[in-house]
Amino acid sequence: MSNERLIYLPLGGAGEIGMNAYVYGYGRPGEERLILVDLGVAFPDMDTTPGVDLIFADITWLEERKDRLEALLITHAHEDHVGAVGHLYERLGAPKIYARPFTANIARGKLAEYGVGDNAVTVANVWPEQIQLGPFRVGFLPISHSIPESSGLVIDSPEGRVIHTGDFKLDETPLVGEAFDEALWREVASTGVRALVCDSTNVFSGHAGRSEAVVGPEITRLVNSSTGMFVATTFASNVARVKTLADAGVAAGRSICLLGRAMRRMIEASIKTGVLSDFPTVVSPEDAKNIPRENLMLIVTGSQGERRAASAQLSRGKHMGLTLKEGDTFLFSSKTIPGNEKEVIRIINSFSELGVDVVDDSSGLYHVSGHANRPDLERMQDIVNPQIVVPMHGEHRHLREHTKLAEQKRRKGVLAVNGTMVSLSGNAPEVVDYVETGRTYLDGSVQIGALDGIIRDRIRMALNGHVTVTVVLDEEDEPLGDPWCDLMGLPELGRSRAPLQEVLEEDLSQFLNRAGQATLSDDDKIEEALRRVIRQSANDEIGKKPEVTVVVSRLT
Amino acid sequence: MSNERLIYLPLGGAGEIGMNAYVYGYGRPGEERLILVDLGVAFPDMDTTPGVDLIFADITWLEERKDRLEALLITHAHEDHVGAVGHLYERLGAPKIYARPFTANIARGKLAEYGVGDNAVTVANVWPEQIQLGPFRVGFLPISHSIPESSGLVIDSPEGRVIHTGDFKLDETPLVGEAFDEALWREVASTGVRALVCDSTNVFSGHAGRSEAVVGPEITRLVNSSTGMFVATTFASNVARVKTLADAGVAAGRSICLLGRAMRRMIEASIKTGVLSDFPTVVSPEDAKNIPRENLMLIVTGSQGERRAASAQLSRGKHMGLTLKEGDTFLFSSKTIPGNEKEVIRIINSFSELGVDVVDDSSGLYHVSGHANRPDLERMQDIVNPQIVVPMHGEHRHLREHTKLAEQKRRKGVLAVNGTMVSLSGNAPEVVDYVETGRTYLDGSVQIGALDGIIRDRIRMALNGHVTVTVVLDEEDEPLGDPWCDLMGLPELGRSRAPLQEVLEEDLSQFLNRAGQATLSDDDKIEEALRRVIRQSANDEIGKKPEVTVVVSRLT
Repeated sequence: MSNERLIYLPLGGAGEIGMNAYVYGYGRPGEERLILVDLGVAFPDMDTTPGVDLIFADITWLEERKDRLEALLITHAHEDHVGAVGHLYERLGAPKIYARPFTANIARGKLAEYGVGDNAVTVANVWPEQIQLGPFRVGFLPISHSIPESSGLVIDSPEGRVIHTGDFKLDETPLVGEAFDEALWREVASTGVRALVCDSTNVFSGHAGRSEAVVGPEITRLVNSSTGMFVATTFASNVARVKTLADAGVAAGRSICLLGRAMRRMIEASIKTGVLSDFPTVVSPEDAKNIPRENLMLIVTGSQGERRAASAQLSRGKHMGLTLKEGDTFLFSSKTIPGNEKEVIRIINSFSELGVDVVDDSSGLYHVSGHANRPDLERMQDIVNPQIVVPMHGEHRHLREHTKLAEQKRRKGVLAVNGTMVSLSGNAPEVVDYVETGRTYLDGSVQIGALDGIIRDRIRMALNGHVTVTVVLDEEDEPLGDPWCDLMGLPELGRSRAPLQEVLEEDLSQFLNRAGQATLSDDDKIEEALRRVIRQSANDEIGKKPEVTVVVSRLT
Repeated sequence: MSNERLIYLPLGGAGEIGMNAYVYGYGRPGEERLILVDLGVAFPDMDTTPGVDLIFADITWLEERKDRLEALLITHAHEDHVGAVGHLYERLGAPKIYARPFTANIARGKLAEYGVGDNAVTVANVWPEQIQLGPFRVGFLPISHSIPESSGLVIDSPEGRVIHTGDFKLDETPLVGEAFDEALWREVASTGVRALVCDSTNVFSGHAGRSEAVVGPEITRLVNSSTGMFVATTFASNVARVKTLADAGVAAGRSICLLGRAMRRMIEASIKTGVLSDFPTVVSPEDAKNIPRENLMLIVTGSQGERRAASAQLSRGKHMGLTLKEGDTFLFSSKTIPGNEKEVIRIINSFSELGVDVVDDSSGLYHVSGHANRPDLERMQDIVNPQIVVPMHGEHRHLREHTKLAEQKRRKGVLAVNGTMVSLSGNAPEVVDYVETGRTYLDGSVQIGALDGIIRDRIRMALNGHVTVTVVLDEEDEPLGDPWCDLMGLPELGRSRAPLQEVLEEDLSQFLNRAGQATLSDDDKIEEALRRVIRQSANDEIGKKPEVTVVVSRLT
């Protein structure tokens, strides 16, 4: 037997939905040549990552082996697959990048923010063309999803063929982009497939997925029955949906205006790369102001309630000179991603206050998912007929359920979360290593580790407030004047109804008067002691123990 | 005409779901005698209220008129109706409180935390008994909901009869507590009803509500088909559901163990007040440890993913000596309240990692809502036949939709959000005043105002981090030594790869060397200038502008 092996190692995306980053390797253990599939972001929230801008997979393992990295392949242009390309490009040693034209266009935009030129990304042709990458030959196999030019990857190695689905649905009428071509997939699989590494997002959805084509007639009906201004939001990257919305608007005699940079960016990229050829002419916001509202349709960003996106701006009042009012209609042609409910509901209530009728996603009429549902996942297994099924792109519950589904269908299922290195060689898949993984935060312009304690400190300040204590000590370690406090994020008055600041300062003074030389002469001791005084005293007064910064100034 | 009037004024609960507090008044304008219906809490979140413990309606308006307050009436024992009773009791001048026995038991517990004795709450009998409260006569009219002894209120005044529904559903088989008695409600309404002030929570649910009785058989089937330990969570106050779960467990030969203080408190209160008479014997967690897992059922708190509740604790590993594992089943017999999705999903994934099978609320089989759906609201209008419908207990979108529904049924609908004083006198309802309302935060042991800026400062620290700057100036306003910085919640290294602290201190030094006497001698000027230096310098280094506390120590 050869002692070379084929490995699969998710660094991100297996155990969460977001920040996809999947490594494949082939070679002797520890010397495998590597390819990376996708390099996406996840999004922060106030609960766990306040102030953070973006979240990436911790790619340290790969960075330390960048000399073995043959290339980065990008399956499609969703942020959770392409969003980190610019931010991590240099750390990975500026690898070759391959993507289809539309995806390449978006990836190049990401790289340009870091001054990296367009030639960093090579435009890939579709199957049957294959790219030789060390021991791998990789082909881009078109598949339908909620963004143009999504691709599965056919990854051939001396150990056989792996199919990495990317994000997908089985849509035979996707309106924009290629329809799912079952015959082509069957043909690709006909030579035998060792492993199907497969999207798991919708494994809990029991009915077969619906085509993008089904929402058009419903949206058209809704637009036709609306009298005031019609505003619709969807995911900016769902170009087919944006087109469906625009077509419905035009059919109803409305001018179309796109609001939101991401929306315009995606439509431009689609037109430029030829995936979208007959998008209606749009009007600018300036011109839109002068169009009677019953003849106007806005298609806007912010379907997830993002505060700075167009939907939220419109819900708060005038935006780009446009104002919604009684009799207007606002459509969410989107689903609310778990965790975003409050923001979306906030917008709906703001529109309600303006008298705008909101049509949300609860009817299911105006949105279809871009991911394969459970019966579609079964169908994909039947088409590809792999020996092994490796669920990816899902939280633990999705991966587990998808693994069970594979086993029900009498295939080998492998539950491999981030950091699990699986050998796909030999008779059965085998976990051969656990690699340290985690999250990297883009915080302002700096990349920090999730476990650096920086965010923990911020969360503590948010929960507990902050007190700065200042003490000046003279050459003899005697306090010079009284200590004082500066409070931030804390109430002015506590239990005793005296100003909290005064109470704290009084307690500090009393402590310093009692404190001995041993404490006063030692910075660590005095800091620790003053911190304790503040926390105890504040807890008595306001039932809260603040974070404390102690500043000891010594005159020497 | 009399110049006395009947007024309705929501202080909380109308424009949000939570912190219910509804004022009714009767008398000459500005001299109305007042009653308050419910005094509940809302729950904080990290996004908008970090560190806050509870949220109440701002009752300042009522506090300033407490001499006119006849009584507080509590419709039922949910936290959003009774939760603030202890916290606000003294501020309202220790009003008389009326509630039915179970609700009174819970309210007394809230008051006891503030040292208020049981006699503060008078136990009310149900209709046809009425309580004379100044110009009002008020009766408690039983209605079904997801907690025992929920009541509507019949509020009679010289201007006629108002029916305040409280939270309700039309359940003829509620298992615990009174069934909805349509004949009784018809009879009460038969003399004519001026206004129906009505729960709006489920106005967007198009199908008629389902009875509590429908979930029992489904739960029993599920428990019977489970082989390992069975754990179920629901709202602690949903006593009927807890009983249904327990009965299903007993029927399947399992011992029942309740985990979570709130759960045990509710069951105790139910038994003590006679609303629950045949609850199965339970075992303690200590005894549960020794019972074979296939013979054990846990009923636990934490259906919303609350971090410290039993569900979350179990998902993280051993809790009270009990550990879940492969083959066990965990049932959410509850719905996830919008905003809690992430926490619930986190728990589900943790259970998935343990190999526990989770049954969530997606099937709809194991939970029914406690609120009236749209057809039920219509039926209620038909039964009560009021002149006016005043939607309450809902966000703006619910109130608006419910108002429309009333108008579709050719009644007068009044959309009155918090602070809107509506006169229900005369021929048509009329908004007669807008009262300043808002939110009060319980923060540790202190009540603070939502607009005090305290929470805003905490959020800013969470988003931006915090820097303390210390400068010591001598008698001549000259810097004594170098300024220094303490950082909290900020990265150590920035763009220049030098420690951020050193870069900031260097920039401060340079600034101070250049600064003139006019700046150095003026505390405000120097603070403002140093803050600007820090924010600018940090922004260059890390792309973030921290919050800054400047401490200037002057030797005088």
